This record gives sequence, structure tokens and C-alpha cells, in this order.
Amino acid sequence: MTSAALAAPAPVDAKKASAFLNMPAVQRDAHAFQRAQLEGLATKRFFYTQAFEIYGGVAGLFDYGPTGAALQSNIISVWRNHFILEEEMLELDTTIMTPAEVLKTSGHVDKFADWMCKDMKNGEIYRADHLVEGVLEARLAGDKEARAGAAGAPAAAASAPAEGGEEPAKSKKKKIKSVAQRLDDAVVAEYESTLAQIDNYTGPELGGLIKKFGIKAPESGNDVSDPVEFNLMFDTQIGPTGQIKGYLRPETAQGHFVNFSRLLEFNNGRVPFASAHIGKSFRNEISPRAGLLRVREFTMAEIEHYVDPLEKTHERFEEVAHLELPFLPKDVQQAGKSDIKTLSIGEAVKSGMVDNETLGYFLGRIHLFLLKIGINPARLRFRQHMGNEMAHYASDCWDAEIHTSYGWIECVGCADRSAYDLTVHSKKTGRALVVQKALKEAKVYDKLVPSINRKALGPKFKKEAKQAEEAILALDAAGLEKLQSELKNGPAKVGPYELTPDLVSVELKTIRESVREFTPNVIEPSFGIGRIFYALLEHSFWSRPDDKDRGVLSLAPLVAPIKCLVVPISSNKELAPLVKSVGRRLRAAGVSSRVDDSSATIGRRYARNDELGTPFACTLDFASLSKGTMTIRERDSTAQRIGSIDDVIAVMKELCDGSLEWAGACERLQEYSGEQAV
Amino acid sequence: MTSAALAAPAPVDAKKASAFLNMPAVQRDAHAFQRAQLEGLATKRFFYTQAFEIYGGVAGLFDYGPTGAALQSNIISVWRNHFILEEEMLELDTTIMTPAEVLKTSGHVDKFADWMCKDMKNGEIYRADHLVEGVLEARLAGDKEARAGAAGAPAAAASAPAEGGEEPAKSKKKKIKSVAQRLDDAVVAEYESTLAQIDNYTGPELGGLIKKFGIKAPESGNDVSDPVEFNLMFDTQIGPTGQIKGYLRPETAQGHFVNFSRLLEFNNGRVPFASAHIGKSFRNEISPRAGLLRVREFTMAEIEHYVDPLEKTHERFEEVAHLELPFLPKDVQQAGKSDIKTLSIGEAVKSGMVDNETLGYFLGRIHLFLLKIGINPARLRFRQHMGNEMAHYASDCWDAEIHTSYGWIECVGCADRSAYDLTVHSKKTGRALVVQKALKEAKVYDKLVPSINRKALGPKFKKEAKQAEEAILALDAAGLEKLQSELKNGPAKVGPYELTPDLVSVELKTIRESVREFTPNVIEPSFGIGRIFYALLEHSFWSRPDDKDRGVLSLAPLVAPIKCLVVPISSNKELAPLVKSVGRRLRAAGVSSRVDDSSATIGRRYARNDELGTPFACTLDFASLSKGTMTIRERDSTAQRIGSIDDVIAVMKELCDGSLEWAGACERLQEYSGEQAV
Repeated sequence: MTSAALAAPAPVDAKKASAFLNMPAVQRDAHAFQRAQLEGLATKRFFYTQAFEIYGGVAGLFDYGPTGAALQSNIISVWRNHFILEEEMLELDTTIMTPAEVLKTSGHVDKFADWMCKDMKNGEIYRADHLVEGVLEARLAGDKEARAGAAGAPAAAASAPAEGGEEPAKSKKKKIKSVAQRLDDAVVAEYESTLAQIDNYTGPELGGLIKKFGIKAPESGNDVSDPVEFNLMFDTQIGPTGQIKGYLRPETAQGHFVNFSRLLEFNNGRVPFASAHIGKSFRNEISPRAGLLRVREFTMAEIEHYVDPLEKTHERFEEVAHLELPFLPKDVQQAGKSDIKTLSIGEAVKSGMVDNETLGYFLGRIHLFLLKIGINPARLRFRQHMGNEMAHYASDCWDAEIHTSYGWIECVGCADRSAYDLTVHSKKTGRALVVQKALKEAKVYDKLVPSINRKALGPKFKKEAKQAEEAILALDAAGLEKLQSELKNGPAKVGPYELTPDLVSVELKTIRESVREFTPNVIEPSFGIGRIFYALLEHSFWSRPDDKDRGVLSLAPLVAPIKCLVVPISSNKELAPLVKSVGRRLRAAGVSSRVDDSSATIGRRYARNDELGTPFACTLDFASLSKGTMTIRERDSTAQRIGSIDDVIAVMKELCDGSLEWAGACERLQEYSGEQAV
Repeated sequence: MTSAALAAPAPVDAKKASAFLNMPAVQRDAHAFQRAQLEGLATKRFFYTQAFEIYGGVAGLFDYGPTGAALQSNIISVWRNHFILEEEMLELDTTIMTPAEVLKTSGHVDKFADWMCKDMKNGEIYRADHLVEGVLEARLAGDKEARAGAAGAPAAAASAPAEGGEEPAKSKKKKIKSVAQRLDDAVVAEYESTLAQIDNYTGPELGGLIKKFGIKAPESGNDVSDPVEFNLMFDTQIGPTGQIKGYLRPETAQGHFVNFSRLLEFNNGRVPFASAHIGKSFRNEISPRAGLLRVREFTMAEIEHYVDPLEKTHERFEEVAHLELPFLPKDVQQAGKSDIKTLSIGEAVKSGMVDNETLGYFLGRIHLFLLKIGINPARLRFRQHMGNEMAHYASDCWDAEIHTSYGWIECVGCADRSAYDLTVHSKKTGRALVVQKALKEAKVYDKLVPSINRKALGPKFKKEAKQAEEAILALDAAGLEKLQSELKNGPAKVGPYELTPDLVSVELKTIRESVREFTPNVIEPSFGIGRIFYALLEHSFWSRPDDKDRGVLSLAPLVAPIKCLVVPISSNKELAPLVKSVGRRLRAAGVSSRVDDSSATIGRRYARNDELGTPFACTLDFASLSKGTMTIRERDSTAQRIGSIDDVIAVMKELCDGSLEWAGACERLQEYSGEQAV
């Protein structure tokens, strides 16, 4: 398909809905994307901008302006409805500031690190995996160039998905200039296999690759150091004496886990249930690039779903079982490939590729959420983590990856954290973080039980009485049997303690267990809102063939920052009161609107509107005063319809709350072919 | 009025609305408040809890549970509607992490500090003002005790507002034990006058008071050090090399100011307009106490309203001018008093007590917002800052203070930051942060203007050419006149530079100015959401005379975490599908509901509901199955009405969206006197 197919339909086609949004996803994908143009629009229309821009900016920090803040808050609102309300999750708002002890226990102080290398001469810092990746990709590009040059053909086709931007070709590395130089076929194969597994190497392994492939600092050509770990958490001191070391949380998850007992109590002691938290987290990235995709401060939305480890089924699994998802499992990647397996979630769980129903259920819900806000399903896949790639707490993990001009980007992680976190916190604090579940049938069995006479034990062992008691209680069944039989014949020894029948006795008792106690497992869907936000901008961006310099953001009404532009045809003062009242009535109908009464031509105002991603525009002219009519313009098709102000507002309300599509609106409002403004 | 007046009305009075909320504010105030009971409820029902509780907790950090997070998010949602949407403010979401340079420029690195004293022997740390305040208050209490003892009367009446809790009596100080000891009348007067101005002392002045009054560390009796400044910002390092020092923002304001140019452009270059930001800020409090009232991490909602310094009028001032507010101006406080002046905002601005219309407008809007969410107007006042008390950036400031069991608490600040911030950032970065406004009539005047011939100046002064040019451009009118006349007679000197007519000439030119350029002033209403949240809990809390151990939280439907409890009368399985469907239908009607199908008695479940602040409960029984009826219980009166399930859901929707009051509901639903459950 050519880009001409992206043209806005002529007015006669106006009943067709949004030209762009209704286009098959694959065709939208094919639209030639210009990243620099999108970035220009995002800054100009203040979706987002580098933070502290007037101070020269700080890498990895971004501010959201009015449009971006509204888009973000709409995405979050859809998320809250889709997950928290729909599934009655327990929402939390916990602190960002976290004492070191908590993150030491969770493993983050020791393990939440990336590997970095230093240029041995100028001190420049590189993330080790990005360095290896960047250099090998540059060498492969150079090889392609050399081969193409030899064959007399252009080399450009090699790096298709990354073209079009002036930024690094992949989010994870600095762009390194390639030099046309042919490699042996075996070397090419080795590089490609290495790249397919780049996320799976440990630090020392990366160091080995650097030596093996003779990798130097790309700018200076100097040697680089062996990779060393750099912890990604920001640290600080709590209180004036500096005694409490604190970190800014790298995830919201620990705030859920330390509150587990209260959450469980709130849920009347029952599992499964889930807690959810939307909030900022922080990672001190080594060398952040790639705009919103790799940042030091970001909004996350995290769910911790607590389940009985013996019952990872999900009550609503059937609702998603039929959904077909594109999977990229770990065995495929470990074989150096990236072929997608498309199958239903039901099959994926049945075959054991996805470990359990609960994990499968959330993959389906994630998929539905992303489609709901407007992510292109043809540019979405679910990739399983490889062994070494997994976070220290995870037993299985699938990422929802979205394709952008930076390549495939992890936007949602869905990890099975097993009982890891609750177990370590419980062990450290001595607090039981467990669930008690009534057994359907009580277990009845006999068991040897020691009875300790504390009144006698105390005076006998004095300061060591407690240790003596603990030694007895630590005995297993065999130990108790031995003690019981020894006591029959006089004093018995347990460790250094000599025990007599007046101090302790051991008897067979009938035990009736009516509850089972367990540490729940945790399934964690974790959303990077900023990455989803950026991917959505890329998937929504295009430009009209007849006006290539201006962008259009085809955001759905559900998430668009402003739903409706109100435009007076001229700056004539007679129109002003009507403009105000229409704005007020739209607001009362729950439609967020914005008036553009600037002196720009109406065409220019519509174009500005397209850049803001506003799906509809209401235009007021002198007929509005005389006849009480108003026109409505649909952004993607630029088609216009007309009706009474009352009718148009009623239609607008339904278009925005999702109960009406544009085609339906066209049936209720007449075609307008009066003053064609664009 | 006695506490009996707080009793729930009998069923015959059911048409009367909420017993508690409809009570005159002063009477609600008189209700005997038990802080420990509220705190117990807040923890038990997981409104909030100390963060990292299982690790022993960290002072000044709190987590919000499901009820608290929902209440907070409802307060924020009302705020967003009341301010951002209603006034079309530009919402921002900027970073918490802030480079040191920005906060150095804003003055926070140097001035955002509290004064602290150290116990000279054991190193214990005190906030200097709290230390002085606490010791003097304890001495005054001791004096009252001694006088009362001498007169044989009970001393309790002295400290009315602070009674009832085991916590410090005022948020700002540690509770210090008083010793009955009579003071001279003159000393009492001096202490009282000092306390009235306690917020107005500098660090050295506090040091003077400590010496003058012989104040020691209260626990140890040791001497304390002179007050030293402690900066309240948390610091950290950005990036792996530690070159960029960063702070966690102490307010969101700087994030607005550094984005001023983009905001102005977004607003088509016009003032007035406002930006708004809801987000977390951080202050490393010296010794946080008083629960949610003094914390290290908190949610703020800040508005920066940009105005022409010559036009601080406000378009909508008339809408609030008639509102009567309780003011506590600075002159009253500086005279050592705290008498309230109640007058209309119109009069307050007219008399100059409140500086301008815009400031007055926001005081009115703040007042309306606080009342809307349920703050008791009898426990609200507007206090003006005294000279030394004002933040370094402010030229005038009024706090909305809410009365709680900790005393009067600043919950909203409304400061006139003048042009301070934009000016310092502009100066530091060299970026113009100004507004250009077309003059109604262009100014035309003659002016001497130098013309520099750079082509000749460069070769003549070489490296110093730039300085020479700057020296010329720095000349004022007199200097230019002198230069002009000297040049007529040959070479002239400007600083060290000898100038000739080929290098520079000075001529009279006609200047036509059609725009005025100015740095806007900023009016900043700044809301501490956590403090408002806590004050609202206190103002909503009471207990029924016949069930004093259990609390009731009379939160209005607008902010209540859950609007409706759905209760099956028994755990009979036949009721389950109906319970589910009613829950679903309420959700579809936009009413957040929660099912309580636990095995507790219905009375216990209603009581739990009262603690959760849920305004209504729908009860399903066997008549629901056979006749399709449902009862509705109003929390404050405990009155019940009955109707068809459809009718009750319709009434519930209106009760929750604010279009119907309970009295109206009583007209549409029949009285229910069947099974009286409570």
C-alpha cells in the first residue's frame, strides 16, 4: 500500500469512520514514520520536554506539559478502571523513600545493578551490554555495507525498523558509526547469535566478550575496564543525624509486601486478592538515552496478585482463554532466533509454555488494556525472559513488548515472583506473612509433643533456660522419640543440657489440623506508563499526504487530552457569548473542551487541533447565531456534519463516552458541505 | 448542648438528613474527640499506617491503604474539578529529582532550613522553635496548675482544644511534662507574648530566648547548643560519576517556573493564566511528630497563577467578594493576640488587608473547596504570615488553618511570590521569562542610540572588542550625550577604550514602543493534601452515645472511599447471585460499592461500615428474592427506607452524584421498620 491510502477521504466518504484508526493495523505500521517530526510536535504542543531545559536539561528526566499530563492521566484512568475497579483490587499509596534495611532484605542493595565499563584513559562510562551490542551491530552494519559495495547494491535495507530518526537506532545503545569492512561468515554468525542473547549475559561474561571481540571505547579507541556493578538506586540520608540510610524506591512492589498483613486482614484473610499502586519510581540509569524510554524517574502502575501456590488457577480465566497472542518464548531466543508463536492463551497455558492460569489471565488482560488505549496489535508481542535475564526475585517473567522506531521495547513486565519477597521480609522481621486457609477436611494424626515445665527449667538452667527450651523445641520427630525413651531410664541430654522427667516430658498427642498455613505466591503485572505513553504517540502519529510537514495524532477519544475544540469562525465579538456557553455546556456533559479564539485562520486552527490529538472540533459561525446550528469536524477524515447545537452536544457526549462511533454520528447529523475550512 | 444531642434520631425522624452532618458546625465541634480512638480506627480500617511498620517504622513516613488511598484520590478529584477544570488551568507533571543548580538559584539551598539545637551531652536533636514553644507552654501549664491548686479548682479547662489524646498537644512541639510552679504575672505575660510570635523569630533570636529563659533539653536537663541551620532537602547524586548533585524537590513550584516559557506559549502568550501540579514533595523534617501533619514525604497540589503586576484584578472576583471569612491579620498577631476579624473578601481587599483581588479570589476559592469536601467552617481560619515568618520568596502570604486536636494547622498556603522566582531563574540562565503585552496606545519618544561599526571595532580592539562594545551599550542617557558631544571634537574615551567617529556614532532616534514587556507576578495557592485529609478525618469522626467504643466517620458521599455497602442478610447461597448483580449494577451506575458477605451479624457489618465512612448500605434479604425489594440504610441517622431494587439503585446514583439529598430520597422510598438491624 502506498502512502496515498493514508489520505483523508473526500466529504462523500464522510460516513466512514476515522481514516487512520480504522485502517488495518499492519497498514498503519507501514506508514513511514519520522521520529524527529513527532519529537518536534511533542515539544511544540507541550506533551513533554526535557526537564530543566532552560538549565541545559538533565539526561533521563522529563516533564509532562498540559497535553502530556492529560494524556497520561487518561491512560492511568483507563488502567484504574480496567484493573483496579473491574477486579476490585486494593489500591495503595506508599512512600517513595525507603530505608536501606528493607531494600537490603529484598535483594536490591546487592543485586539491583547494571554492569558498566570505564574508558581507561578519559573515564567515559558505558553500560557494558550496550557497549558490546553497539559495537557488534556497527561491525555487522559495516559488513553489510562492504558486501553491498562489492555487489554494487544499496545497503540501506539492512536496518529497516530503526530508520527515520536521528537518535540511536535502538534504545539500549549509543549509536556507533559503522565502517565498511567485510567479516568472515563465521564471525557474522557468531555476532548475530551473541546479539540474540545479549540480555542473557552476566557481567563477567560481558567482560569475556569484550576481550574476545577486542572491543574498545567507540569514541576514543581506548581500552575499557572490566565490567563493574553500579547499583541503580538513588541513595540519601533520612533525618538530621544521617543515621538512617534511605533509597528512592526502584519499584512500588516492596511497599505492597511490607503491608501484606494489613491488606490480607482488609480482605478478611482470604486469597486470592490483589493490591495495586500507581506512583513514581526511580532508577539512576548509567547513560540514559532514547527519550521517554529510558529515564531516571518514571510513573509505574504495579499489581501484586497473591495466590495460593497450590492453586494458581484464575476464576475468570475463561474470559481470556480464547485470545490469540504473539509469544516469543525463551527457548526460541536461547537458540539465537526471534520467531513468534501465535496461539491462544488457553493453549499456551495447557502446553506449559505459560506456567499457570493466573499468569495467562494477566497476559490477556494486559493485551486488552493496551488495545483499548490504542496500541497497534500488529506491533505488540509477549517475550519470555531467559534464565540470566530474570530479576533476582522472579521465577518466570513475560514482557509485553511494543514495537517503536527504537525497536521492540519492554512496556509491561508480568513476573511470577513466587514467595520470594514475602519470605525474605518475614525472615528478616520475624513477622509471619502467611495465609491461613481452612482445610475442607481436617487432618487428624498423632504426634510426639514435648511438655516443658518452665517453673522447674528456669531455676535449673538460669540464664541458659531459654536456650535449653529452644533446644528441646528444635527437636524433630526422631529426636523427640529418643528423648522420650531416654527419659524413661533417667536423665537425658539435649545438646549440653541434662534433662530429667520433672523438667520435660514427651507424649503422643492427637493433632487436629483444620487450617493450612502458607506463604502466598505473587504474580506481578508491572506497567511502565511513560513507555506506553511514548509508544502510543508513535502508533498514533502520521501526516496527511497533502500536508506532510504537519503531524496528526490520531488518539482515541478515550485517551485524547482534549476531546473537543470549540472554534468561532471569526473573532467577531457577537460570537463570544455563544462560544462561552457551548464550552460550558460541553463541560457539563463531561466533554473536556478547549476554545481556540486566536486570530489564526480556521484551517490553521484545525491543523493545530490535529497536532493536539483532539478528535473533534465544533465550529460556531453566524448561522449558529441566526439558526442555532453548529458543525462538528472529525479529525482523521476531516469530514464535517451539521445539526442543532443541542443535537451536536448530545452526539459529542456519546462519541466521547464511547457509546457512539463516528458512523453512527453521521446518521444523526447532516452532511455539511458549506464552508470547507481545510 | 450535651452529647445526647448527637444520638441517631429514632426511625420516625428518618426524613431528617444526616444527624451529624446537618448539625450546626459549632455543635459538631463541641463533640468530645478521642484522638486515640480515631487513630485506632484509621489503622484498623487501613486508612493509613506508619510506613515500614514491620521494620519498626520510620518517623514521618506513612502509607495509605485502600480506604485512605480512595479518600485521598477523591479529595484530589474534587480539587482537580474545582480548580483545574473549572478555571482551565494548565496541568503539569514535572520531576521530583531536581539538579542542585536550580534550587541554588531559587534560594532553597541557602535558605530552606530550620534551626536546630543539640543536647550538648547526649546529642539529641531539637527543632529550636519547637523547643522554646514546648518549654514555655509547659511552664505556663505548671503555673496554671499551681494557681488552680492554690484556688482549689481543677486545672483541666485551661487547654481545651488539645485534650483527649496521648500525643503531643500541638503539632509543632514535643510534649513536655509540666511541673506545678507559680510564675510572676509579668513572666506569664512575657511567655504568652513570645508564644504568640513564635513563628516570627530568626535562629539567633531563638538562641537569645533560650539563654534568656534558661531553656535546657527537656529530657536530660542538659544545656543545648546555639541554634544552627539544617537544610530540609534530601540530597543525592544523579548519574554514575556523581558529578550532578540533586535534591528531591521540596515543593512542585520550581517545576512550573522552569517551564514558564512553554506554558506561556501554550496559552498563546497571554496572561493571566495558571499552571497546576499534583505530586509528591519531600522535606527532611528534623523530628517529625503529629502523625500525618508533619511528614517527610507528602502529596501537594500547587497552583501558580501568573498575573500582570499592574493588574492584579480577577475576572471572577465578584463571585467570591460577598463571602465572609475569618481573618487573623499579621498586626493582630504581632501585638501578641489572636482575635479573628470576620469580614467579606470584598471588604478585606478594599481595606488593603488582603493585598489584591487575585489573592482574595483564591482565598475564597480555597474556602469553598474546603467546605465542599466536608471541613467544618467553624474550625477554619485565614492567618496572615508575619514578616520574619514568610518564606524567602514571598511578599505576602495567608494560610488557611484548620483546627484539629493538635491545634490550628496550616493546610493551605496562599502566597504572593511576586516576580521573585522567574526573575532569579531568568538571571541565572539568561533566558527571558517575560510576557509581552500590546499597549493600547503605542509610546513614541526620542532617544539617543549608539551605532557601532563592528567591522572597524574588531581590528582595533582585537580580543577586547567585545568588552568595548559592552562598555558602550552600558552607557546611560547622560553617558551617551557626553560621548556624542566628545566625538564631535575628535576621539572620546569610554572606560579604557579610545573611540573615534569611524568606530561609533551616537544619534537621536524616534522610538515607537507598541508592547510592554514584564515579568509576571505569581500568586500561589499551595495545598498539603495529607494535612487536609487528616483534618477531614478528625472533623468527620464521632461515636454514637449508645456505642461509644465504635467510631463513625461521617464522610460525605462526594469523598467517601466506598459509597455503598451491599449486605446480604445471611450467607444463604440463594442470595449470592443477586448480591453480585446488585454490585455490578451499582458499579455501572458509577457508584463504587463493596460487598460484605462475611459471617458477622448484620449489626456488626453496619458498624464496620460506619468505621469505613460508607454513607449508605443496601441490604438484600429473602423479600429481595420474592418481591424484588431492597432496603437502604443512611449511615448517620441509621434510618432505613425500602423500595424496588431498580428504584433504590436510581436513588443511590443521585445521592452519590450529589443531585439528591437524603430528605429527597425519603420522599421517594418508603419507610422501613421491618427488621431493625442496629
